Amino acid sequence: MNPAYAQTLRELLRTQQVAALGTLHQGQPYVSMVPFALLPGGSGFVIHVSQLAAHTKDMLSSPQVSLLVVAPPTPDVPVQALARITVQGRAAQIADGAAGHAEAKAAYLSRFPQSADLFSFADFSLFAIWPESIRFVGGFAQATTMSPQTLAEVLNEA
Amino acid sequence: MNPAYAQTLRELLRTQQVAALGTLHQGQPYVSMVPFALLPGGSGFVIHVSQLAAHTKDMLSSPQVSLLVVAPPTPDVPVQALARITVQGRAAQIADGAAGHAEAKAAYLSRFPQSADLFSFADFSLFAIWPESIRFVGGFAQATTMSPQTLAEVLNEA
Repeated sequence: MNPAYAQTLRELLRTQQVAALGTLHQGQPYVSMVPFALLPGGSGFVIHVSQLAAHTKDMLSSPQVSLLVVAPPTPDVPVQALARITVQGRAAQIADGAAGHAEAKAAYLSRFPQSADLFSFADFSLFAIWPESIRFVGGFAQATTMSPQTLAEVLNEA
Repeated sequence: MNPAYAQTLRELLRTQQVAALGTLHQGQPYVSMVPFALLPGGSGFVIHVSQLAAHTKDMLSSPQVSLLVVAPPTPDVPVQALARITVQGRAAQIADGAAGHAEAKAAYLSRFPQSADLFSFADFSLFAIWPESIRFVGGFAQATTMSPQTLAEVLNEA
C-alpha cells in the first residue's frame, strides 16, 4: 500500500472514536452508533455495550457484523470522497476474566477514560470484533479490499 | 416532543450530509457511507447510488434497510451522548421519469449541487428510503421511538 494511503487509514482509525455498527436484527440490518477502540497490534476492534441494547442481543444471536468508520467532513473534500472503512467481521463477547479481557479493557479505557464507571455495571460487557474482510475508500477512485493482516500491518506502523 | 429535543433532531438531519446505510448482503449486515438528502415534507430520505456498488445490489434484492445519522463529535459532549437517529425503512428505486423523481432529484441536488454531473451517468440512480420505525437518541438517557409521522412533523417545523 502506498504510504500516503496507509497514513490516511491510520489517521482515520486513530482519530475517529465512533463507528456505525451493523447487526442482524430479526433478519434485517440494523445500524447503531458505538464508541470503539483498537485492540493491541491492530488485530481488531473493541466495543463496550449494554446487554439491554438491541445491538448486543443481535451480536449474541448473530455474530456476523459490519463496522463503518467515516472521516469527519471538511470544507475541502466533497462528501462522496470522505475516507471510510467498512469492516466485515465476527463479534465475540469477552467475559470478565477471560483471555484478552484485561488488554481489551485497557485499550478501551485508554481511549474512553470517562467510561471506567460503566465497567462496574453488570449489564455492560466488552465485545471484540475480529475483521474478516475490509473495504477501505481513501478518496475518489481509491477503493481497495484488504486483508485483516494488511490492516494490522498498517496500524502497527508509526 | 419537547421543543429542545425536536430542535436537536431537526439540526441533526439538516446539518449532517452523510449517513451509514445498512443493507442485507448475502444474508449478513453490510454498512456503507451514503450522502443523503431529505425528501420534501420530511417523508423520507433520498440517496443517489451506483448500480456497481454492493449496497445498490443489496437494496434491489432486499429493500429493508437501516440508516444511521450521527452528530459530529464536540469537545463538550462524551461520544456516548452524541445525538443520533436510526431509521428502519424500505428502499425503493425511483426511476428517471417516475412519480416523485423530479422532487427527489431537486432535493438531492439542493444539498449536493456538485453531484449534478453524476445524473448523466447511466449506472447512477435515486433511491428513496421510506421510514417505518425510528429510534432517536438526543443525549444521555434521552432515547425515544417515534413514528414516521412524528418525524415528518418535527422536520416540517421551522
